[in-house]
Amino acid sequence: MKLTSEDLRDLAVGAAFLGTGGGGNPYVGRLMAQQCLDEGLTIELIDPADVPDDALVIPTAMMGAPTVLVEKLPSGEEALNSFKSLEKHLGRKAFATMPIEIGGINSTIPLVVGARLGIPIVDADGMGRAFPELQMETFGVYGVPGSPMYVSDEDNDSTLIMAADNKSMEWLSRMVAIRMGGCAYIAEYSMSGADVKRTAVPNTMTLAMRIGRCLREAKANHQNPLDALIALMPQTLYHHARVIFSGKLVDVQRETRNGFAIGRARIDAFTPWKGTMQIEIQNENLIATVDGVVKAIVPDLICIMDSESAEPITTEELRYGQRVTVVAVAVPEIMRTPEALAVFGPRCFGFDQPFTPIESMA
Amino acid sequence: MKLTSEDLRDLAVGAAFLGTGGGGNPYVGRLMAQQCLDEGLTIELIDPADVPDDALVIPTAMMGAPTVLVEKLPSGEEALNSFKSLEKHLGRKAFATMPIEIGGINSTIPLVVGARLGIPIVDADGMGRAFPELQMETFGVYGVPGSPMYVSDEDNDSTLIMAADNKSMEWLSRMVAIRMGGCAYIAEYSMSGADVKRTAVPNTMTLAMRIGRCLREAKANHQNPLDALIALMPQTLYHHARVIFSGKLVDVQRETRNGFAIGRARIDAFTPWKGTMQIEIQNENLIATVDGVVKAIVPDLICIMDSESAEPITTEELRYGQRVTVVAVAVPEIMRTPEALAVFGPRCFGFDQPFTPIESMA
Repeated sequence: MKLTSEDLRDLAVGAAFLGTGGGGNPYVGRLMAQQCLDEGLTIELIDPADVPDDALVIPTAMMGAPTVLVEKLPSGEEALNSFKSLEKHLGRKAFATMPIEIGGINSTIPLVVGARLGIPIVDADGMGRAFPELQMETFGVYGVPGSPMYVSDEDNDSTLIMAADNKSMEWLSRMVAIRMGGCAYIAEYSMSGADVKRTAVPNTMTLAMRIGRCLREAKANHQNPLDALIALMPQTLYHHARVIFSGKLVDVQRETRNGFAIGRARIDAFTPWKGTMQIEIQNENLIATVDGVVKAIVPDLICIMDSESAEPITTEELRYGQRVTVVAVAVPEIMRTPEALAVFGPRCFGFDQPFTPIESMA
Repeated sequence: MKLTSEDLRDLAVGAAFLGTGGGGNPYVGRLMAQQCLDEGLTIELIDPADVPDDALVIPTAMMGAPTVLVEKLPSGEEALNSFKSLEKHLGRKAFATMPIEIGGINSTIPLVVGARLGIPIVDADGMGRAFPELQMETFGVYGVPGSPMYVSDEDNDSTLIMAADNKSMEWLSRMVAIRMGGCAYIAEYSMSGADVKRTAVPNTMTLAMRIGRCLREAKANHQNPLDALIALMPQTLYHHARVIFSGKLVDVQRETRNGFAIGRARIDAFTPWKGTMQIEIQNENLIATVDGVVKAIVPDLICIMDSESAEPITTEELRYGQRVTVVAVAVPEIMRTPEALAVFGPRCFGFDQPFTPIESMA
């Protein structure tokens, strides 16, 4: 499947939704991919089922604080450098690249890498959403090592991380990304086609495009875009979605700390909703409570949407006074197994509350 | 020249002296080298003049805060891992290893690497003393790039740094060393034999042994060890040495910050000395003032010695109440050129005072 400019616009919107606040600014990433199309390059998605079992796939991504990304724009060479350095280290050419997360800029960075190298991008990812840390990938949950990993910046610095485990890889590379100015570009979790099929969350790129298209067409047809979106999700692996709150953003605390965008948003209810919703953020929206009662919790998606435009709002764009609607979405079952929850469940973010699927909540 | 146990003891003392407070605990490093001798391995020093011009030399070292080293002892495999990984990356076997600094543990880490791999250790180094940062090497001053560099820890993590310049290499690798627990083991500044001859401070390993032997023999012969040492130095490239203060340590401030042991020592004078000497520390002793007047300044050596035993005292061993004598030593001219002072002169440590050679001071 070859992507068009319209696909890229839909993807940016859908990836911002699935990114659940994180993954970096989707606008910047869309422009980078659009530039490839403008230069006459081809962006070709490939279904994971069509990747040969013995082919080498090297995922690529941005790593760091999305708040930094919007001020320190990438040149576009950084992720290519990491990809090519890792190919050289492995002594083998890759068949394709792949996103590590489906969120914001990280759904489009691999498109740029694929277009510039003339290789396809696998329609799948390793988070099924966005997560703040690199060990939080289904690839690692199901046994693919993250190392060897390359981290590159715009100043021609690059670093190869060979970590004993994926948490060490995150621990070491995070500081490298910080020293590179708060965000950097990576290649990691290189794997076989067989491992892609076994460990990736499938078809999330096309899902993001479907979400973007659904919102766009509903608006064009004067339908309620949120209703259309909520009707769409049960047809996908993300089998349940509903509005859990609506109101006005009355407080946003946000700081860039330890290489992450850390914060908290408070939303005062509009009728018929009651009370104040509080959302805790580490790059992504992690837990939503109303007056202390949990309404949705990681890894399920918590998406803050503009109530007027139905556009997803990323963490760094939250502003006092915005009228927002909060949508919660069930994640695929591959992300809810005990192994998966041990790596990116609530406890991994310091929350005492157990994971409760959104479809089981009041 | 094959080293004996007695050589190692002399080296530890001399390297602690030349390390001017830094370079890590010499006792730990001596034990690691002694273990190699106990296992029947050979530690062979080679004169830089005897290294073939086209031979590959890979220096090895510990990087981090000496205060951490004494609590987190190395297994001995870490520097070997970095060395072998760099050989593999370069696609070439090295002829020899070499110290990057002559101070504390960093004069003995290369001995362990050389002994275990059966290769010689070049009798030279890249600092002519100890310095806190990796760009502060004569290798880099005279044009050898520090990258590619490997950083390894005891947990089987390792990182390859490919930095745009030597300051970026320091900047990136420092955080990796911090994340590895505050100290790590490195291989960097790989170079040809011709570059060794052109850029290294020569014969500092044998000098350290001469210093250690001089102090030991003076004590055995009931001579004043400090007098003997001060008589020795003019016979070397370190052409001037003298006592600049003597007194009691009345205050030591020391903290591990940004991966360095940062601090300040204050010494109240014993007759005939007057006033209070203050010594500023970043791993190493950098500037000594008495009541605001500079008495010695980096890159010249400022060595704090125990007044009773004439043993050098490293930064992390400074204690309230110690009776100490401070000796200042001129460094070789290769370390005092404008290019060298631009990299490790007083301004590089944030001091406003210009460099003044110790032999020109009152």
